[in-house]
Amino acid sequence: MTPTLYDLRTRDPDIRPSPYCWLAKFALLHKGLDFETVPLRFTEKKNYPDPDYGKLPMLDDDGELVRDSATIVAHLERKYRTRPLTATAGEAAAAEFYRAWLGAVLFPALVPLTLIKVHDLLDEEDADYFRTTREKRLGKRLEDLAGDPAAPARMEAALATLAAPLEKHRFLGGDSANLCDYIVFGPLMWRRTVTHEAPYKTPSAVEAWSGRMLDLFDGYGRKAKSAA
Amino acid sequence: MTPTLYDLRTRDPDIRPSPYCWLAKFALLHKGLDFETVPLRFTEKKNYPDPDYGKLPMLDDDGELVRDSATIVAHLERKYRTRPLTATAGEAAAAEFYRAWLGAVLFPALVPLTLIKVHDLLDEEDADYFRTTREKRLGKRLEDLAGDPAAPARMEAALATLAAPLEKHRFLGGDSANLCDYIVFGPLMWRRTVTHEAPYKTPSAVEAWSGRMLDLFDGYGRKAKSAA
Repeated sequence: MTPTLYDLRTRDPDIRPSPYCWLAKFALLHKGLDFETVPLRFTEKKNYPDPDYGKLPMLDDDGELVRDSATIVAHLERKYRTRPLTATAGEAAAAEFYRAWLGAVLFPALVPLTLIKVHDLLDEEDADYFRTTREKRLGKRLEDLAGDPAAPARMEAALATLAAPLEKHRFLGGDSANLCDYIVFGPLMWRRTVTHEAPYKTPSAVEAWSGRMLDLFDGYGRKAKSAA
Repeated sequence: MTPTLYDLRTRDPDIRPSPYCWLAKFALLHKGLDFETVPLRFTEKKNYPDPDYGKLPMLDDDGELVRDSATIVAHLERKYRTRPLTATAGEAAAAEFYRAWLGAVLFPALVPLTLIKVHDLLDEEDADYFRTTREKRLGKRLEDLAGDPAAPARMEAALATLAAPLEKHRFLGGDSANLCDYIVFGPLMWRRTVTHEAPYKTPSAVEAWSGRMLDLFDGYGRKAKSAA
């Protein structure tokens, strides 16, 4: 049976911003698997394969339900051994470091610039839910976050760190993309699907890498519908 | 001819804090090379093999003089192909990322807590030089930097990111140490040689890894003389 990925959607079912769903999609593509996606709203948790867990992505792989992007990646790596997502334990350790850096540096830099854009693409019930949960977590109104004058500089500092490996290598994975690339590119797809406007300066090595990431898998990322 | 590493010393010639010299020493050890070190003061640049370049480490490898830790690493990797410092291009890319993260996050967190300790171990002429150059670069007195109340929290945040790969792997290199480990451990040896007092909390995964790093190469790091 074709694996099915349950993917977060906006008002437009073809605009799918979730960075964690993007990681899962890139991991499925890397493995060369045919898969289907089912677009679901934030608030229709009753239609999620596990309503109580209540978060996407979830993957139904031949009847086995896998929750959470990191667990989906581990599941795919264990079950489909050809085309490994990381070729060595050193690369797997690096992927964990990139993931932690994302949480500590890249996401906090990107969140103020992006949440309001996501919000504006949701239908009314989802928009209310999204605003309430995010404002409670972050302690600020989405509009105030969006106006944070320090956010572009934080994003530029994060991207300058990311540029270092990309000045010498085509991908974070070296000559070809690996899990490190998919982990880091998820948040950039998140931003891209909701706007093409970037208030921060992107170093040319990161820009060129983004282009290569969008071209992968027959242009899967580039073809993805965006709000721009 | 045995390679010779020119290494920065303190008043005590056996206390050698420089994080970049530590990277070079670990790279030489990893390659299994016999090497000698020559301890030199900050201000005796006339005795450096290239006085005009004026910075250490420098490596004299059979008459070829190599300047700067990153260039020394690249030189060793090219010349001594057994025991590679990185096994794949993905690991080499990760090393570049760790190096950039060090500059952006770990070093800025560690500098305020460490500079005054290095200073206090230098003889008078070196101490004056060290204070003048560092205070000019950072725009603050070493004593004021040392009192920065935000420094321990910044260090703890940096170490929390570093803990992520080490919770799943013995080394940043995976099952054994690679260039990523040596790059990141340099600054921690820098701190260790000048004091055993750590005002920040170290996550247990980082603590355990530090112990493994100190044990490598017959306990080379652990045996290194420190001020404590």
